[in-house]
Amino acid sequence: MTDRLLERVRPDVRNIGMYRVATPPHRIKLNQNESPIELPQAVKDDVLDRLRSIPWARYPQQQSTALPDALRASLALPGRVEVLTGNGSNELIQALLTAILEPGAPIAIPVPTFSLYRQFAAILGGQIVEVPHEADLTLDADRLADAAGKADARAIVLARPNNPTGTSVPIDGILRILTRTDALVVVDEAYVEFAADSVVDLLASHERLVVLRTFSKALRGAGLRIGYMMAAVELVEQVRKVVPPFNTSVFARETALAILARRDLLRPGIEEAIAERDALVAALDALPGIAPTPSEANFVCFRTDLPPRVLFDRLLRRGILVRDVSGSPRLGDCLRVSVGTPSENRAFVAAMREIMEER
Amino acid sequence: MTDRLLERVRPDVRNIGMYRVATPPHRIKLNQNESPIELPQAVKDDVLDRLRSIPWARYPQQQSTALPDALRASLALPGRVEVLTGNGSNELIQALLTAILEPGAPIAIPVPTFSLYRQFAAILGGQIVEVPHEADLTLDADRLADAAGKADARAIVLARPNNPTGTSVPIDGILRILTRTDALVVVDEAYVEFAADSVVDLLASHERLVVLRTFSKALRGAGLRIGYMMAAVELVEQVRKVVPPFNTSVFARETALAILARRDLLRPGIEEAIAERDALVAALDALPGIAPTPSEANFVCFRTDLPPRVLFDRLLRRGILVRDVSGSPRLGDCLRVSVGTPSENRAFVAAMREIMEER
Repeated sequence: MTDRLLERVRPDVRNIGMYRVATPPHRIKLNQNESPIELPQAVKDDVLDRLRSIPWARYPQQQSTALPDALRASLALPGRVEVLTGNGSNELIQALLTAILEPGAPIAIPVPTFSLYRQFAAILGGQIVEVPHEADLTLDADRLADAAGKADARAIVLARPNNPTGTSVPIDGILRILTRTDALVVVDEAYVEFAADSVVDLLASHERLVVLRTFSKALRGAGLRIGYMMAAVELVEQVRKVVPPFNTSVFARETALAILARRDLLRPGIEEAIAERDALVAALDALPGIAPTPSEANFVCFRTDLPPRVLFDRLLRRGILVRDVSGSPRLGDCLRVSVGTPSENRAFVAAMREIMEER
Repeated sequence: MTDRLLERVRPDVRNIGMYRVATPPHRIKLNQNESPIELPQAVKDDVLDRLRSIPWARYPQQQSTALPDALRASLALPGRVEVLTGNGSNELIQALLTAILEPGAPIAIPVPTFSLYRQFAAILGGQIVEVPHEADLTLDADRLADAAGKADARAIVLARPNNPTGTSVPIDGILRILTRTDALVVVDEAYVEFAADSVVDLLASHERLVVLRTFSKALRGAGLRIGYMMAAVELVEQVRKVVPPFNTSVFARETALAILARRDLLRPGIEEAIAERDALVAALDALPGIAPTPSEANFVCFRTDLPPRVLFDRLLRRGILVRDVSGSPRLGDCLRVSVGTPSENRAFVAAMREIMEER
């Protein structure tokens, strides 16, 4: 009977697995690229105060522009660019793909990258054109543009910096992709605060560019689920139809507003993460059998001459949880580690040294 | 150029409008079927206390079963029924439809009903089979089963009690729909706490039944966005692939758990709403030119011999915001009013009397 039950589910959905993050017991969590430090208490107090005075029993105001306006102001966006907030940027990527992909529609996605792009495209039955990173884990913009153009891809989705490699397509590469294809170019800037630059300024002149950002990484709000999309007004209007109404809770809105209002308080944590990341790359580079990839994000992808699963398990035995990315194309001998607090990073490097010297 | 931009959006999406709730300035809000009273302060205090001690910077634990377990316990669900929580039940309906509908796939939806079912199905290109309510605004289960069976509908989506009519298909009607079709039967119980009965007990014996519930109505949490789906384990496993990971924020989870733990505190408010609803139906029935439909929910749908827009505007001029549902099939001469606090309901009835006697 149950077999017949599942016949009602589309094969595209039946045939894929679930996005799952395993979380075995650990002491130091370096597997999800979260901020290792909480929001400043002043920001949390602002939010808790606000939660005392706003209604919980009423739907979030659909017409409220307070958060989009604050985001717009913080980025000095031009008038023809619209901001759409979501329950995490994941929801917005999914809504955008739902708006543009029917079964068989081509979409170009670099590999390896954040696996949800592929997941969402596959669910919709999209024809996924995979474009591999180079051997050094950079992405060749022209190769991507060629592949997308040849397939007549409706969209190209890439992360900049890319997860899990930590590398970034240079801005002139993004410009060439925009010029050389007719596709929507979706750039996920989840890690932009740790990077040298952003493509946001290109929005004014490129209506096919879509930029996604999140409060889950540098802005220390992964638990509240808030992300946003910036794109041409006309395109956002279409995506907005696909996103369920009232998708951004009053809690998420208030926290996002409080974070934006005190953004200066978060700056030192971001600077520390960048310095720690660079120190981590240098420390890993000095270890025998380890080769880190330079990173623009708050994590580091590194090759190991121990089988990655063995290294993962030995780290976990010492209480340190990293991400095993070795199932991804090009990353067969790699793990990924998030940048933690200075003491977490020291503990990680010490454990790595011990394991690699003993091997 | 912008015309070409929108060519990338699927016609199914371009051709529909957006779900919009207009909220003109008002004094008394009776348009969204929310609870007119906030959560008890004790529940809010529990939540605010918990928010001080849980991390905000970390993703919600994907494997956490605390909330599904609490829901399962509160409903005594059997083991083969799984609970999936969402960012409002809207997200879950959309995910379910995404899992089962490809363009052209038939789905049966009564009219009038909550407009998002149609919106989500249309976005996916589903072939929507509309089944009208009877003249008295009840729904004929056999007529629905016939239409769904004839179209070979993959799913039937209905609300019980139905929004905006307030009527319910009897449970034996739901059983006949299950028996007489091969479709997934999706029953949205958003208003079940105000109704005489629930279909939840049928889940144990009917694997094609899917039940949705929400914290947005009787449970006074519309602002936090939490809903849940109950269905066969195997089906939920498929829908779970479609829902973005980490879709339920730590705030929403904590609030839902606090509400469930103190559910007894909400009981008097629900009883009051039911009594107020019945009094409202009686009061409307006594007014000239007004004919209310008996309701099992926390709102009342009523016919008016004034043009509904005129009555809507006259109420609004007195500060009272209701819902104009006259654009829906069968409801051309109807408005819908949510049950408010006793004093809000008195103000509404007084305004109605004044308007109808002056007309």
